[in-house]
Amino acid sequence: MKAAIVGGGVIGGGWAARFLLNGWDVAVFDPDRQAPRKLAAVLENARMSLPLLSDLPLPPEGRLTHAATLAEAVAGAEYIQESVSERLELKHRVFAEIQRTAPGTPIGSSTSGYRPSQLQEGAANPAAIFVAHPFNPVYLLPLVEVVPGPASDPALIERVKETLRGLGMFPLHLRREIDAHVADRFLEAVWREALWLVKDGIATTEEIDEAIRMGFGLRWAQMGLFETYRIAGGEAGMAHFMAQFGPCLTLPWTRLTDVPAFDDALVALIAGQSDAQSGHHSIRALERIRDANLVGFLRVLKARDWGAGRVLNAHDAGRSDDGAVPVTLHPDWAEADGTLGEAGWLAAASAVAPQDGQRSTDTHVRQLATVRPGEALTATVRLSGDATARHLLVTFRRDGAPVASVERRLAPRATAPQGER
Amino acid sequence: MKAAIVGGGVIGGGWAARFLLNGWDVAVFDPDRQAPRKLAAVLENARMSLPLLSDLPLPPEGRLTHAATLAEAVAGAEYIQESVSERLELKHRVFAEIQRTAPGTPIGSSTSGYRPSQLQEGAANPAAIFVAHPFNPVYLLPLVEVVPGPASDPALIERVKETLRGLGMFPLHLRREIDAHVADRFLEAVWREALWLVKDGIATTEEIDEAIRMGFGLRWAQMGLFETYRIAGGEAGMAHFMAQFGPCLTLPWTRLTDVPAFDDALVALIAGQSDAQSGHHSIRALERIRDANLVGFLRVLKARDWGAGRVLNAHDAGRSDDGAVPVTLHPDWAEADGTLGEAGWLAAASAVAPQDGQRSTDTHVRQLATVRPGEALTATVRLSGDATARHLLVTFRRDGAPVASVERRLAPRATAPQGER
Repeated sequence: MKAAIVGGGVIGGGWAARFLLNGWDVAVFDPDRQAPRKLAAVLENARMSLPLLSDLPLPPEGRLTHAATLAEAVAGAEYIQESVSERLELKHRVFAEIQRTAPGTPIGSSTSGYRPSQLQEGAANPAAIFVAHPFNPVYLLPLVEVVPGPASDPALIERVKETLRGLGMFPLHLRREIDAHVADRFLEAVWREALWLVKDGIATTEEIDEAIRMGFGLRWAQMGLFETYRIAGGEAGMAHFMAQFGPCLTLPWTRLTDVPAFDDALVALIAGQSDAQSGHHSIRALERIRDANLVGFLRVLKARDWGAGRVLNAHDAGRSDDGAVPVTLHPDWAEADGTLGEAGWLAAASAVAPQDGQRSTDTHVRQLATVRPGEALTATVRLSGDATARHLLVTFRRDGAPVASVERRLAPRATAPQGER
Repeated sequence: MKAAIVGGGVIGGGWAARFLLNGWDVAVFDPDRQAPRKLAAVLENARMSLPLLSDLPLPPEGRLTHAATLAEAVAGAEYIQESVSERLELKHRVFAEIQRTAPGTPIGSSTSGYRPSQLQEGAANPAAIFVAHPFNPVYLLPLVEVVPGPASDPALIERVKETLRGLGMFPLHLRREIDAHVADRFLEAVWREALWLVKDGIATTEEIDEAIRMGFGLRWAQMGLFETYRIAGGEAGMAHFMAQFGPCLTLPWTRLTDVPAFDDALVALIAGQSDAQSGHHSIRALERIRDANLVGFLRVLKARDWGAGRVLNAHDAGRSDDGAVPVTLHPDWAEADGTLGEAGWLAAASAVAPQDGQRSTDTHVRQLATVRPGEALTATVRLSGDATARHLLVTFRRDGAPVASVERRLAPRATAPQGER
């Protein structure tokens, strides 16, 4: 399978990483001479995080090529994703050139600013063009808003949703097009309000970020707006909650009608506050921190099969476990009651995947069933991470169902184990 | 230490739980005859989740009383929190009655709808009255917006912030009062936009929730708006990002100027969609799911000392470890190289805290330092949870610094271990 990525910035690079790590060959076209370097940086981040979301080995990584021309990139592709700058005439030119080579191939656009009907205007084959709007970092966040336009082919859209699910994503199919789709309308509303608060001297960028991540941000990572408020309404339910909260809407709690003047003074104010807040971390460091946090949250949700974690479990379930090897459980590994315990699983994991003298700073044993030596098990091993933090996951299965897993975070041999704080 | 909680609903109950579990005696005043039952339900949730955020035992739970009168509740209290209905004249009456008994005691108001200057109007001692606006569930989310009014005493506000930090909360001190404070302005903007999307048939409540929790909700649980966008701007920084995104503000991406008519039809539409989305879970079940997810996220952040996790670590650091017992490490527990490994720590944890035949479904060993038998260690044991899921944490320390920990989730003896899925 081959995907063509047109535009290789942060968003296009994230798409490329999703496809490559899920086994697709990827051809990137971006005339920017810095594109290969930028893409390599995104890929490096993705390789350190995306595999940690999966309990099965990902397929062998696909082949990445940087195409010299757009025609070369899209030739033979099963899927094309466009992530060029937000200029409609540029997108129209790109679509026209793509469809001279690949008229029937699905073309998803990462646009947040244009509706699919605008994208389809004047196209040779408008039926193949639609919005597939992802969220940064594209290689970790499951959401992709799929918005068909008036000329779209419903069967093609369904096939596209299957393709996106195969990448571990959550296609949210919007039935009616609207400016900015859905999620960005919320981001826009919050962004506008935040600019006012900074400009009016009510709060700094740091205070605003704390107001979000210490409170409702934690709620919204696992339930959205309505499910959260449903709980707030209690047993009396949603209608009760709305009766309580509804009247507030007529109060002027937001600076609704005004748009702050986007002048140099406002830009300087915000950039300065942001430097004070985050300037002690490089962007690279912030990316790593963000990705590690997201992996942690997503694994919490995965263990509980909730929200984005269900998407990850479905992604695992859709793949076969090719790398599984048979495992023989040593009788010595059993506890006094004849079944395996924590120490037995640790020994079994070490037998399947030796640590080469590296020490685990963080070890996680999950026991999902009662198992005795002599039973026929298989094990899969997944190794990921980099030189400073290797991550080893051994999953044991009986008749395909997981019975135990051992995760180890390995410290490099040369250095003493370090705490995470 | 004694706290008085005036108004014992979901918010007041959450405050009561925060104080009680942090060792304060709590007197609740609420004329509602259902108040004790409602409070007991909130407390039950809090007992199952709040202790899991801490690596030290919490102090012995304080004593809870339901006071017959407001005067009885506030007499001798060091702190008073008001969470009555959002009616200004009611709040004024409550403050007047409180200050007849306890004129100098700090009175925080949970109000989201009133500014502190409005609360202070006509009070006998306005200097003691301020906004302390928490977020549901109050026993888990760290954020509390502290907003002084024009008559506030700055020294009292600083003491209040210390009190709130002692409860593991994050007091966000707003320097200027504004309608709805800060966080609710964002919630209001998103809520209003969401109502339009539902009313206009663009998206259902479920689709809107997915648009949040599959994407930007995960970002906002760990970084806020500005730090997230700082990354999006890349090495070019915040000013670059703003130059790209700023002009969008003049596009009509939100239904800014209109307020949807809050009629029965809109209430019925949303309540019906919410039933279809979440109706298969009771509110009680949703609360448990929410709390378990939040504990998981908060522990991810705590392990990385980031955002809300830093607040938790500071809360731990501020308490002494009274329950620590000396530990003798058996020479047999060492590995071939003479130091303790995973299996050794498991054995040491079992010695300190026997599992009484219960099997661990989930075991997490952290090794933060190299340790040999013979070194002087202490251990603390924390047991929490309920009959169906007991949670056991043993933390080993050398000179007060953690060197290893073993967490076990124990399945009841009678039943076979169950997977989490």
